[in-house]
Amino acid sequence: MNLAVVFYMLGWVLLCEGALMLLPALVSILCRDGSLSSILIAAGICLVVGGLLILRKPKKWNLRVRESMAVTALGWIGISLLGALPFWISGAIPNPIDALFETVSGFTTTGASILRDVEVIPRGLLFWRSFTHWIGGMGVLVFLLTLMPRVGASQVNLMKAESPGPQVEKLVPKTRTTAMILYGLYIGITVLEIVFLLFGGLSLFDASALSFGTVGTGGFGVRNDSIASYSTYVQVVINVFMILCGVNFNFYFLLILRKFRRAFAIDEVRWYLTVFVSASLIIAFNARHLFASFGAALQQACFQVGSVMTTTGYATADFDAWPQLARSILLVLMFIGACAGSTGGGFKMARVVILVKTFFKECRQLLHPQSVVIIHMDNKPVPHNVVRSADVFLVTYVVIGLGSFLLLSFNNFDFTTTFTAVTAALNNIGPGLGGVGPTQTYAGFSAFSKIVLIFDMLAGRLELFPVLLLFSRHTWKKY
Amino acid sequence: MNLAVVFYMLGWVLLCEGALMLLPALVSILCRDGSLSSILIAAGICLVVGGLLILRKPKKWNLRVRESMAVTALGWIGISLLGALPFWISGAIPNPIDALFETVSGFTTTGASILRDVEVIPRGLLFWRSFTHWIGGMGVLVFLLTLMPRVGASQVNLMKAESPGPQVEKLVPKTRTTAMILYGLYIGITVLEIVFLLFGGLSLFDASALSFGTVGTGGFGVRNDSIASYSTYVQVVINVFMILCGVNFNFYFLLILRKFRRAFAIDEVRWYLTVFVSASLIIAFNARHLFASFGAALQQACFQVGSVMTTTGYATADFDAWPQLARSILLVLMFIGACAGSTGGGFKMARVVILVKTFFKECRQLLHPQSVVIIHMDNKPVPHNVVRSADVFLVTYVVIGLGSFLLLSFNNFDFTTTFTAVTAALNNIGPGLGGVGPTQTYAGFSAFSKIVLIFDMLAGRLELFPVLLLFSRHTWKKY
Repeated sequence: MNLAVVFYMLGWVLLCEGALMLLPALVSILCRDGSLSSILIAAGICLVVGGLLILRKPKKWNLRVRESMAVTALGWIGISLLGALPFWISGAIPNPIDALFETVSGFTTTGASILRDVEVIPRGLLFWRSFTHWIGGMGVLVFLLTLMPRVGASQVNLMKAESPGPQVEKLVPKTRTTAMILYGLYIGITVLEIVFLLFGGLSLFDASALSFGTVGTGGFGVRNDSIASYSTYVQVVINVFMILCGVNFNFYFLLILRKFRRAFAIDEVRWYLTVFVSASLIIAFNARHLFASFGAALQQACFQVGSVMTTTGYATADFDAWPQLARSILLVLMFIGACAGSTGGGFKMARVVILVKTFFKECRQLLHPQSVVIIHMDNKPVPHNVVRSADVFLVTYVVIGLGSFLLLSFNNFDFTTTFTAVTAALNNIGPGLGGVGPTQTYAGFSAFSKIVLIFDMLAGRLELFPVLLLFSRHTWKKY
Repeated sequence: MNLAVVFYMLGWVLLCEGALMLLPALVSILCRDGSLSSILIAAGICLVVGGLLILRKPKKWNLRVRESMAVTALGWIGISLLGALPFWISGAIPNPIDALFETVSGFTTTGASILRDVEVIPRGLLFWRSFTHWIGGMGVLVFLLTLMPRVGASQVNLMKAESPGPQVEKLVPKTRTTAMILYGLYIGITVLEIVFLLFGGLSLFDASALSFGTVGTGGFGVRNDSIASYSTYVQVVINVFMILCGVNFNFYFLLILRKFRRAFAIDEVRWYLTVFVSASLIIAFNARHLFASFGAALQQACFQVGSVMTTTGYATADFDAWPQLARSILLVLMFIGACAGSTGGGFKMARVVILVKTFFKECRQLLHPQSVVIIHMDNKPVPHNVVRSADVFLVTYVVIGLGSFLLLSFNNFDFTTTFTAVTAALNNIGPGLGGVGPTQTYAGFSAFSKIVLIFDMLAGRLELFPVLLLFSRHTWKKY
């Protein structure tokens, strides 16, 4: 392990965070909400700690897999710890574990909250809370890559460690340019949504906060009833942007390059849209008796399906009161999640597609033991190591999920609450069912349970391995 | 597909079933319970249909994977359909779907029941109900193999298709001898348990029925409260034999050969016992306040852990009323199941061990991309295809589980009931939690839901693929 480079990178991550905190500080000044000092103190701590860490430049710039994983995991833990300071210092969230929970939930774009009443929180802090979604959505290290001219030749390891999905495709040969394109698209979509929401009569504050939550597929709102009390126009805009942000960003890149055929040949995107449409129709049909018209049912179904599939977690209705079929479908969608290479969480549609194809392949192989069956995706054969990594991901996912489920059971909540709380945290969704349903909060869990959920959220966002490898002595061995 | 050989084997399977029905007929005569005629009619139908099917001897004896899979799947469906006749004809279970559910639950050693009151069922039928567990436990085709001098050189394919576990090890070079040794052990253990239970003061009827349920890891009892009202001695005897029957039968074979070192080197058995002991201790500690003493709590915990792990499903207490940690542990154990090569169901400890080892291997491989890490079990390297098949099994398992969960949701029962009903059926356990808890029955489900659960029980017992391949057009292609 090249610790020098890890600490150096960590320093830059914290410097970035300190700089990004100036935006909520500005909001605090404009709204005169009294939270300015706590935000500035936190920003100051970020800048000082970050500055100290970058004082010593590393001699060697090698970023192997282990260094990249360590930077990613430690970087995310670092920004979460320091990012929680404004909430804690200001007294808005007096319990430090709760403040950390809320911040991790923000950065990992989970959107699970321990706040029963968000409307009393000062505006600057509320802005920071939503802004963490935006920062976490595309990733801090990807952001850093756009700024740093070079951190050695192996930047791609960093991107792999932080970006979700079974395979990281570089859009262009240079990692840095890829990162810049991704952030460019990201900023573009965010601005577009803010404009659309402003047209719906929202204030700039609400429009930006909700856009951060949507584009980062996070789910923190600024009202106690999430999105329910906004107009249908606003709900539909948010719904559309949620779906757009659950799509693999490669799709947009190909669209910009006018490679339409290649864009629409992406299997994952087609599956994603098919599942979205079918699930929405079935749920609308299943829950239609709860609404005035089928149209209204469909709008609500589309919103909830989009919200759960993209792992955003905004709610316009209490879907925990819907029939069991609807709830079951939503629960299954929680596991599937959004596309790889999007800001959404979950298991990722690409992996689901690979696993389903593996299943059919295996059935055929069983009957024709001598034949060689190869899985194709986007009309290209899928490399063996990608298939294996999807298998391994499933195993790891099940192991962590079951382990967390057992640990959370110490809280002695009912099965539905315990099970869906883990599901919602590990897949970065936010609300679950039962005691953590869309109208409830995570405040009731013990500190121990919250720490387990914090771990799940981080492991889910970073796709399990970077966080797990922190616990391996192999990672820390001198080379 | 060589249909001739499939039908011929199917004929023999049904002939066997007809002959085995003579035992409950005898019980019916002895008890004068009035169910004799219905049992004899069913036995007659088995013998006639079976006799017709074996009239035409196949020209070719090739039993490839596809034929073996088809014989297994069709054979199990056949014995279930005809095995349900006594219940239906006698009017003890008037609804044919219910009768089929009960019979499939019997043969697959699930033990899920739709009967609210078993004590009113005639003794002959009750004996048949428990006897199906015993037949299904070791397998009908394995039984057939002991009888048939030769069905071609590829008998091992048949055994592979019916026996649970990632790898079928032939104890001795000849498949037929292996089958005979297995059935010899099986009969020996059954007789031993009957004797032990007779010492506890049980009638021969109760002792045999409960032994069939234990040794086949089924779970049908002859009283409405399952095992709760029997003496502690009887409970402990059943508990011990449950655990013994969840052990890989290779273990006993090695013991008989006095290869003690090799027997105790079986990783799976060591993991199995470790998990059993740790889970029992934790649950006893967690639920101790519900019992008079820690000893009583430990006895109950051992019984439930054994019952769930071996997928037997006998109940001495309503564990659905225990604290959530205890219930969560039991739920996780439902998934793990017993050892491969035992009569128990579930995912199988061997696969869990392989998957956990894969996980650690993958972590190391990630850090050392160039190294080759090989998984060992029982001090031997695990072949690549076994690892892959465990991965694929997990994928298939998750796909079938989630699909069934969605279909069962149409019943609009709560999440706990829906989820654990699928879990209990797919893992051949019997009772779940909530509406299918140990004190409840499956009677409330719709006919459609029962058919889904019947499919799950069969798929679970035959380890998914034989049943699934029935739906593949590749299976039915002429060769």
